[in-house]
Amino acid sequence: MLNSFSSPISSLLDQRAAGHSLPAGLYTREDVFKADLDVFFHHHWIYVGLECEVPEPGDVMAIDIGATSIILLRDDDQQIRVVRNVCRHRGARLLEAGPSIVSKLVCPYHQWTYELSGELAHAPHMGQDFDKSCRSLKPVQFRSIGGMIYVCLSDEAPADIDRLAEVMEPRLQPYDLRNTRIAHQVDVIEEGNWKLAMENNRECYHCSANHPELCVSFIDLDFGFDPDSLTAEDRAIAEEHFAMYAERTRQWEEEGFPSQTVEQTRDCATNFRTQRLIIAGAGESQTEDATAASSKLLGSMTRKDLGDVHLWGHNAWNHFMGDHAVTVMVIPLSADRTLVRTKWLVHKDAVEGVDYDLHKLTHVWIETTNQDSDLVRISHKGVSDPAYEPGPYSPFSEKALDDFATWYVDRMRAHGY
Amino acid sequence: MLNSFSSPISSLLDQRAAGHSLPAGLYTREDVFKADLDVFFHHHWIYVGLECEVPEPGDVMAIDIGATSIILLRDDDQQIRVVRNVCRHRGARLLEAGPSIVSKLVCPYHQWTYELSGELAHAPHMGQDFDKSCRSLKPVQFRSIGGMIYVCLSDEAPADIDRLAEVMEPRLQPYDLRNTRIAHQVDVIEEGNWKLAMENNRECYHCSANHPELCVSFIDLDFGFDPDSLTAEDRAIAEEHFAMYAERTRQWEEEGFPSQTVEQTRDCATNFRTQRLIIAGAGESQTEDATAASSKLLGSMTRKDLGDVHLWGHNAWNHFMGDHAVTVMVIPLSADRTLVRTKWLVHKDAVEGVDYDLHKLTHVWIETTNQDSDLVRISHKGVSDPAYEPGPYSPFSEKALDDFATWYVDRMRAHGY
Amino acid sequence: MLNSFSSPISSLLDQRAAGHSLPAGLYTREDVFKADLDVFFHHHWIYVGLECEVPEPGDVMAIDIGATSIILLRDDDQQIRVVRNVCRHRGARLLEAGPSIVSKLVCPYHQWTYELSGELAHAPHMGQDFDKSCRSLKPVQFRSIGGMIYVCLSDEAPADIDRLAEVMEPRLQPYDLRNTRIAHQVDVIEEGNWKLAMENNRECYHCSANHPELCVSFIDLDFGFDPDSLTAEDRAIAEEHFAMYAERTRQWEEEGFPSQTVEQTRDCATNFRTQRLIIAGAGESQTEDATAASSKLLGSMTRKDLGDVHLWGHNAWNHFMGDHAVTVMVIPLSADRTLVRTKWLVHKDAVEGVDYDLHKLTHVWIETTNQDSDLVRISHKGVSDPAYEPGPYSPFSEKALDDFATWYVDRMRAHGY
Repeated sequence: MLNSFSSPISSLLDQRAAGHSLPAGLYTREDVFKADLDVFFHHHWIYVGLECEVPEPGDVMAIDIGATSIILLRDDDQQIRVVRNVCRHRGARLLEAGPSIVSKLVCPYHQWTYELSGELAHAPHMGQDFDKSCRSLKPVQFRSIGGMIYVCLSDEAPADIDRLAEVMEPRLQPYDLRNTRIAHQVDVIEEGNWKLAMENNRECYHCSANHPELCVSFIDLDFGFDPDSLTAEDRAIAEEHFAMYAERTRQWEEEGFPSQTVEQTRDCATNFRTQRLIIAGAGESQTEDATAASSKLLGSMTRKDLGDVHLWGHNAWNHFMGDHAVTVMVIPLSADRTLVRTKWLVHKDAVEGVDYDLHKLTHVWIETTNQDSDLVRISHKGVSDPAYEPGPYSPFSEKALDDFATWYVDRMRAHGY
Repeated sequence: MLNSFSSPISSLLDQRAAGHSLPAGLYTREDVFKADLDVFFHHHWIYVGLECEVPEPGDVMAIDIGATSIILLRDDDQQIRVVRNVCRHRGARLLEAGPSIVSKLVCPYHQWTYELSGELAHAPHMGQDFDKSCRSLKPVQFRSIGGMIYVCLSDEAPADIDRLAEVMEPRLQPYDLRNTRIAHQVDVIEEGNWKLAMENNRECYHCSANHPELCVSFIDLDFGFDPDSLTAEDRAIAEEHFAMYAERTRQWEEEGFPSQTVEQTRDCATNFRTQRLIIAGAGESQTEDATAASSKLLGSMTRKDLGDVHLWGHNAWNHFMGDHAVTVMVIPLSADRTLVRTKWLVHKDAVEGVDYDLHKLTHVWIETTNQDSDLVRISHKGVSDPAYEPGPYSPFSEKALDDFATWYVDRMRAHGY
Repeated sequence: MLNSFSSPISSLLDQRAAGHSLPAGLYTREDVFKADLDVFFHHHWIYVGLECEVPEPGDVMAIDIGATSIILLRDDDQQIRVVRNVCRHRGARLLEAGPSIVSKLVCPYHQWTYELSGELAHAPHMGQDFDKSCRSLKPVQFRSIGGMIYVCLSDEAPADIDRLAEVMEPRLQPYDLRNTRIAHQVDVIEEGNWKLAMENNRECYHCSANHPELCVSFIDLDFGFDPDSLTAEDRAIAEEHFAMYAERTRQWEEEGFPSQTVEQTRDCATNFRTQRLIIAGAGESQTEDATAASSKLLGSMTRKDLGDVHLWGHNAWNHFMGDHAVTVMVIPLSADRTLVRTKWLVHKDAVEGVDYDLHKLTHVWIETTNQDSDLVRISHKGVSDPAYEPGPYSPFSEKALDDFATWYVDRMRAHGY
C-alpha cells in the first residue's frame, strides 16, 4: 500500500540529503506547488519587470504571476507604482495582461474608477454614504534597483533586499536600464517544475553538449570544472584563462566597474549572485560571433569590452552587456509548468535594422532557452518517475544547485513547513 | 504557512458577510464545486428543457448535467417522462446528448432494451430466472410548468416548487410554450463559476457599459439605481418612467395578464423571481430595433405590446415576449467552467425567412451572452487572485445578488455544510 | 451532505457484490487510480513488449508506462535487458519513448554514460573519489515467455508467473515470435478506466451488435451464451459447433499443438487465460474474409488451420494465428484515460506488398479497437454518473468479468487496501 502521496511536506524536507537533488515530491506534488507559490512568490521579493516598460505617465503594464495579477504603472508625477489588478467591488480584473495607456484605471465591469495612485475616485450606484477611502486598489511593495522592478506580495517583505540594491545599483548604473527599450520578448512555457528551471540555469555542466550557440561567447569553465579530469594541455589552457580572468577583473575594478563575485545564496531570504563574466572570442556580446548586436551602446557606455554583468535571482537570470541586455523572469504555472519570459533590451533610441539586427540580437538566447526547455522537460519526466531518487551534485560545477536546494529547504522551514 | 486551501466549507460559509460577495473559496474550490452540484443541482429543482423539444411520441432528448445525464422523452401515451441515461446492466450511456426518435431505448453495448416507460423489456444472455422488474431505468421526478421542464434528481424534492407553478402557469398560458419550436440554440462555456454567471445575470448595473445591443430594448433603471446620483433632468425622466410603468402594469393586469413582481429568493428552496418588464423604444421585442422578430406571434397572442415576462431561477433566466422567447439553462462543468445554453423559441409553425429572420431573432442575446461570458471570465480570474476580498454590493442595483448569496449560504447549511 | 468522495478505498472494496460490476469509485476516483498503478502495474507482472523489437545488439526501445519509463534493450552478448529510463545523476530521461540504436546509453543532460548492462561507465565533473559502482541504472526484473516480455517493477515479483511460462512456452513455440517483425502499430487512447477496457475485452456478449468485421472470423458462442434463449434451430447449430470444436481440439492436441483452455484468474497474482479458438468461415485468420493476410507463415508453421491461440493477461490480449499475430498492451494514463497499443506481427522476412497487404492485415483489429474504444467511453461516462449502481453480469457470457472483478478486489486487499 503506497502512502508517499500523502506524506506531509515537512517529511519531504526532512528527507533532503546535503549534496543531492531534492526528493521527488518537492518537484512534483501539487500541495508543494501551492506552498512554493506562497513562500517563494508571495513572501519573497520577486523580479517582475522593468521601469522602461512604463516610460511615460499613464503607461500601465498588467503582469500575471500565476493566479495573481499586478499592475506596474507610472503615475502623473513620474513615479512608479504597483497595485493589485483586482477591483475592490466584486473582484474583476481591471486589465488584461499586457501594456496599455490610461488616464485612470476603470473596471470594465461596473466602471469603478481608480486614480493611478490606486485611490477610488468614482463608484457608481454605491450611494452617498459609501466610504471610498477604504476601497483603494491594494498597493504592492516594490523596489526599483537600477530600473529593475522587484515586488513582494506580502506585507512582511524580507529586509535583505537591501544587499541586492547596494551591490547592483553601482553595477547597473552605467547600463542605465531606465533608458532602454524592449526590442523583443518571448514567453516559453517549460514543461517542468520552476525549481528544475532554476537549477538548470545555475550550472553550465550541461552547456558544452547542449548549447552550441551560447558556447561561442560563454566560457563554461567559469562555472566550475573537475581539475583532475583535464589533460595536461587543457589544464594549461584553464590556468591561462583564470590568470587572464583575474587580471581582467582587476583592471575592470580599477577602471571603476565593480566585477568581483558577490553571492548571497544561503542563510538569507533574498537569494542572488552576481559577477562580471568574460565573453569569449570577439569578447563583446552573447551573439553568434560574440560581436556586439547593437551599434548603439547602452547608457553611458563607450566600450564593448566590459564583459557580461551576470545576475541571478530565485526567479530570474540576467546578462548586461555593452550593447544589450537579456533579462528573464520565471513564474510557476503549476507543479509541472513554468513560464520563462525573456526580454531583450537595447538603448531606447536604437532603431531596428539601423542600429541592430533583430535576429543577431536574439538568436543565441532563443536557441538556448529552447534547448533548456527541453532539458527541463526531460528532467521533470525523470523526477516524476517512481524510479527517481535524488542524485549527487557535482562538487565542482553544481555547488550552486546544492546551495539553491539548501536555501529552498531552509526558506520552507522558515515559513512553517 | 498557508492553510486556507484546506479549511472546511462551513468556515467559508461562516465568513460570508451580509451585503458582500462570497468568500473566494466558495467560487474557486473544487470541493465546494462538488458540494454545489450535490446541493443545488441534485437536491433542488433545476430547469432542464422544454416539452416542445419532444413533441411526438418516441421523441427523446438526452441532456447532460455535468456527469449526470437524463433522457427527456414523450411516451406513446403522449405523456412526458424523464429517466436516467444509465443502463442498468453495466452502466453504459444509452444515448449521446441530443435528440433522436426511437420506439424503444436500446443500450448500444449489450442491447438491453427498455420501453419508453423505462421498463426493461429484454435483457439477452441474462437467463430465465433474471428478474427484469427491478431493473427499470431510474425515473427522474419532473414538473412541467407551462411547458418548461424542471427536474429534481434526488428523491426528496423541495415542495415549494408549487409556488413557482402557481405563479407561472397563468403567466405562461398565453404564450403556449408547448406549441413552440426551437429556432436556434447556442452553447457557450463560460470560464467562471456558475454562481458568478448567475450573479452577473441578476443585475443590470453592468448593462449600460457592456450591452449596447440589449440596451435598445432593456431599461436598466428597472433593475435599480441610486436616486442621489441622478441629475434633476434624469430624475424627471426616471419619475416619468416609473409612473408610466405603474400605469402599464395596472392596465396589463386589468386586461388579464398577470404582471406584478413575485419573488421567492430568501427562506425558500426553490428560488425564482418574475415580473413583466416594459420593452423600450418600439416596445415589442428584444431585437436590435425593439420591433418583433417574428410576424407569427406565440400561442394565442394577438398583440405585441405585452412587454417581457421575465423569469429567473437558480440555474435559468428567461424572457417571454409576444413574438418569441429566449430561455437559458445554466450547468456547472467545474469550479471554473459553466455551460450556458440559450434557446430561441418561435411559434411551431413560424417559418425561417418567411415569418422571421434568424439574425434579427438571435442577434441581441448572442451578443449579450458573449459579453457576459467575458465579464464572468474576468470576475473568476479576479476572485481567484489572492488579493480578492469580498466587496460590497450596491444597495440599489445589486440587492438581488445579496439575496442570492444569502440564499446560497442558507441552502448549503440546510444540507449539512 | 455528500461524503462518498472521501470514503476510504477499502470501503469501496467492501461494497463490491459478487456477480456484479464494481462500485463506481473503483472506476473513477483518482486515489484508486494511483492505488491501481501501484498494485497492478508496479507489483504485478505486466506485458510490455517483445524480444523482436530489439533484434540486434545495441537496439533499444524506451517504453512509457504512465509516469514510469523503462528501456528494453539487447546487450552486446545478445541478451535482453530491461533498465529504468532515469539517469542516476539528476533523474533526466535518457531516451524519449520509442526505438533507437546505441553503443552506450548517454544521458543528454550531462553525458553520464552507461554500458548496455546498466553500469555507469563515465560521469564527468564528479571527481576521482566518486563511486560509480552504486550508480548503475536500476535493473528491471523481466521474463521472456516465448519472446513476449513481461516485467515486474517491484522487487517482490509474484512467483506464479511460472505457470504462465509453463503453459505458454510450448503453445508459442511454433509461432517463433523472436523471428517476427512489427508490421504495424497503433496507439488508441480510450476515454475510460483501464478496468473497463479489460472488462470489455473479456466478453463477446457485445460482439454481434458492435463488431461486424471481427464477427466474420470470431465465434461469439465460444465466449458463452444462454442456452434457453436459443431457438430449436440455433440450439442445433450450437450443438454442432461445440461437437466440431471438441473434435478439432482433440485433433490439434493429438498433432502436438496444445489447445485446451487453461485459466488462472482467481486466487492468483498473475492473471491469465488461454485457449485455441476456432476461426470461422475460411478458418485461417482474423481478416475481412478469414483467409490468411500473409502468405509467409510464422515460425515453423506449414499450415493455416491451427486457429487462434488466444491469451489474456491483466494488461494484455493477444491472438496468435498461422500467418500473423495481434498483440495488445494496455497502460492506464489516468482514472479516465487508457492507452491501448496494438501491434501486428508478421514473419521477420515477410515483405509488405509481396507477402502481405497491410490493409488486409490490420483492418479487422483497427475497426474492432475503435469500436471498443467507443464502448469503453460510454461505459466510463455511465459509471461516472451518480445514477450508476453496479449491475449484474450475465452468468453465461460475463463470468470472466466476475472473475476479473473478484481478482481485482482480492489483489487490492493483498496489497493492504
